[in-house]
Amino acid sequence: MTAKEYSEASERYRLLVEKGLLSIAERENGSIYPRLHEAMFYSLEAGGKRLRPCLVLAVCEMLGGDIEKALPAACALEMIHTYSLIHDDLPCMDDDDMRRGRPSNHKVFGEAMAVLAGDGLLSLAFETLLRASADTGDIGVLLAAREIAERAGASGMVTGQAADIENEGKQNNTLDTLRFIHRHKTADMLEAAVLSGAYIAGADGDTLAALRTYSENMGLLFQITDDMLDITGDPALMGKTLGKDAETGKLTYVALLGLEGAKKAAADAAENAKTAIRDIENSDYLAAVIDNMLVRSN
Amino acid sequence: MTAKEYSEASERYRLLVEKGLLSIAERENGSIYPRLHEAMFYSLEAGGKRLRPCLVLAVCEMLGGDIEKALPAACALEMIHTYSLIHDDLPCMDDDDMRRGRPSNHKVFGEAMAVLAGDGLLSLAFETLLRASADTGDIGVLLAAREIAERAGASGMVTGQAADIENEGKQNNTLDTLRFIHRHKTADMLEAAVLSGAYIAGADGDTLAALRTYSENMGLLFQITDDMLDITGDPALMGKTLGKDAETGKLTYVALLGLEGAKKAAADAAENAKTAIRDIENSDYLAAVIDNMLVRSN
Repeated sequence: MTAKEYSEASERYRLLVEKGLLSIAERENGSIYPRLHEAMFYSLEAGGKRLRPCLVLAVCEMLGGDIEKALPAACALEMIHTYSLIHDDLPCMDDDDMRRGRPSNHKVFGEAMAVLAGDGLLSLAFETLLRASADTGDIGVLLAAREIAERAGASGMVTGQAADIENEGKQNNTLDTLRFIHRHKTADMLEAAVLSGAYIAGADGDTLAALRTYSENMGLLFQITDDMLDITGDPALMGKTLGKDAETGKLTYVALLGLEGAKKAAADAAENAKTAIRDIENSDYLAAVIDNMLVRSN
Repeated sequence: MTAKEYSEASERYRLLVEKGLLSIAERENGSIYPRLHEAMFYSLEAGGKRLRPCLVLAVCEMLGGDIEKALPAACALEMIHTYSLIHDDLPCMDDDDMRRGRPSNHKVFGEAMAVLAGDGLLSLAFETLLRASADTGDIGVLLAAREIAERAGASGMVTGQAADIENEGKQNNTLDTLRFIHRHKTADMLEAAVLSGAYIAGADGDTLAALRTYSENMGLLFQITDDMLDITGDPALMGKTLGKDAETGKLTYVALLGLEGAKKAAADAAENAKTAIRDIENSDYLAAVIDNMLVRSN
C-alpha cells in the first residue's frame, strides 16, 4: 500500500467516524441538559486521528463486514477514549490545562461539569452499544459491545490508570510494572478496537486469535514509540536511573531500555504484529498502520 | 401485606442482592488492580436498603420471571447508584466527607482513586449487563440493559446532576426546575429498576405502561418525602422565598409548596402509584413499598 493509498483510506474512515459522532451529538441535542451536552461534545469534537474508531471500521471492512454496522461501536470507543482523557486531565489526576491544542474540559466548564461530562460520555458509549445490539439483534454487535466493556472497564483501562497513579513516585518500578500499566492503559483499548471490528464482521476463531496478537503488539509499539517521541527531541533528558525520565520522573521504555533498546523493542513489536496478520486477506491497511506507527518515532 | 410480611420479603431480596454483589467482588478479585478493587467495593459494600436492586427482583418475581436472571441487572443498578454517590461526594461536587456512616470514598482513597473507583463501577455495571445479555442470549435481559443505560446515562441521571449543579445559587428556580432535576436525578433510576425487572420477566406492553406510571410516581414520592424528612426535624428552617430551604439554600418541595402542600403532593403521588398497579396480580409488595415510603415522612 502506497503512502497515498494509506492516507486516503485513513481519511475515508475518519470522515465516517466524524459523521457518526456528529449525528450522535445532533440526536442527543435536546435530551441531554444543554451545558452538559456542550461539555461532552466540546471534548468529543476536538478529535485527533481517531485511531481507535478507524481501526474498528478498517477491520470490519477487511473481513467483509458491513461498515455501517460497525459505526456505533467505533463511536462508542471514541467516546470512551475521550471520557478517559477528560477525567485524566482533572486537577486531582494529571492536572493538564491543555488537550489537543485547546483548554482542557475542566478549564472551560469547571471541575464538576468535567466529571459529569466524562460520566456522560462513558454512559452514552454503552447506551449507543446497547441500542445497536437491541435494535439489530445481531450477536456480533453484542459480542463487540462486551469486548469493549471488558477492555475499557475496571479490569482493563481503568486498572491501567489506577496502577499508573499508585506507582507514581515509587522507587522500585520495573519493566514488568511499566508493561502492566501500558498493557491496560493503552493496549486494551487498541485491542478492543481491532477485536470489536472482527466480531461485527463475524470473524472465526483463528482470525480473532491472529488479530489479538496483532493488536497486543500494536499496543506495545504504540507506547514505545510514544515514549521515544517524548524523548528524542532532547536526548539529554534521558535518565537511566530507576527507569525514569530524569526531568519528568515518568517511567518510560526509553529510560528503562535506552534509546537503542527501545528502538529494537519497537521494531520487534512491529514485526510480530505484521507476522500475525500475514495470512489474512486484504490486510495491507492494517500492516500500513503498523509501518506508520513505527516510522513516526524515527 | 402485613408489616412483617413486607419486611421479610424486603430482607429476602436484600440478601440476594448482597450475595450477588459479593460474588462479583470475588470474581473480580485479581483482575482489577488491588487498590482500585478495594476502593470500588469499599463503597459498594457499604449498602443501605438496596431499594433499586430489590425493586428489580421484586418486579421480576411478581410477573413470574426467573429472579436469578434478574440478579445481574439488580447488581448493575446498585453499582451505578454507588458510582454516582462517589462522584457526587467529590470536593468539586457536593464535597461530602461522610456517606452511609463512613468516610466517603475520596477521604479514604484520595480524589484520583475515587474518580477511578466511580469510573470502574460504572464500567463494571455495563460489563455485567453485557455479559449477562451475551451469555443468556435473552432479549429481555438485553432490553433491561438498554433501559438502564438510557435512564442512568447522559440524558437521564447525569442530566439531572448537571441541572442540579447549574441551578445551584440561581434566583429564578421554579417547581418546573425542581421537577426536572428530580425526575432525572432520582426518578430515572427508580424507573430503570422497575422497568428492567419487567423486561426480564417478559412483560407485555400494558404491564410496562402501568409500571412506568407506578415508578414515575414513586420517584416523585421519594423526592418529596426526602425533602420532608430533611425539614420536619425543625420547621423553623423552612424558608418560603425562592422555593429554597432558608438555612441550606437547597431548592425543595417543602420550601416551594409548604409542609402541608408537600404532604398533599406526596399523598397524591402515592395514590397514583398504587392505582396504576391495581390490576396487576400479586402487586401487594409493590403497593407496600409505596405505603412505606409515604409513612417515613409522617
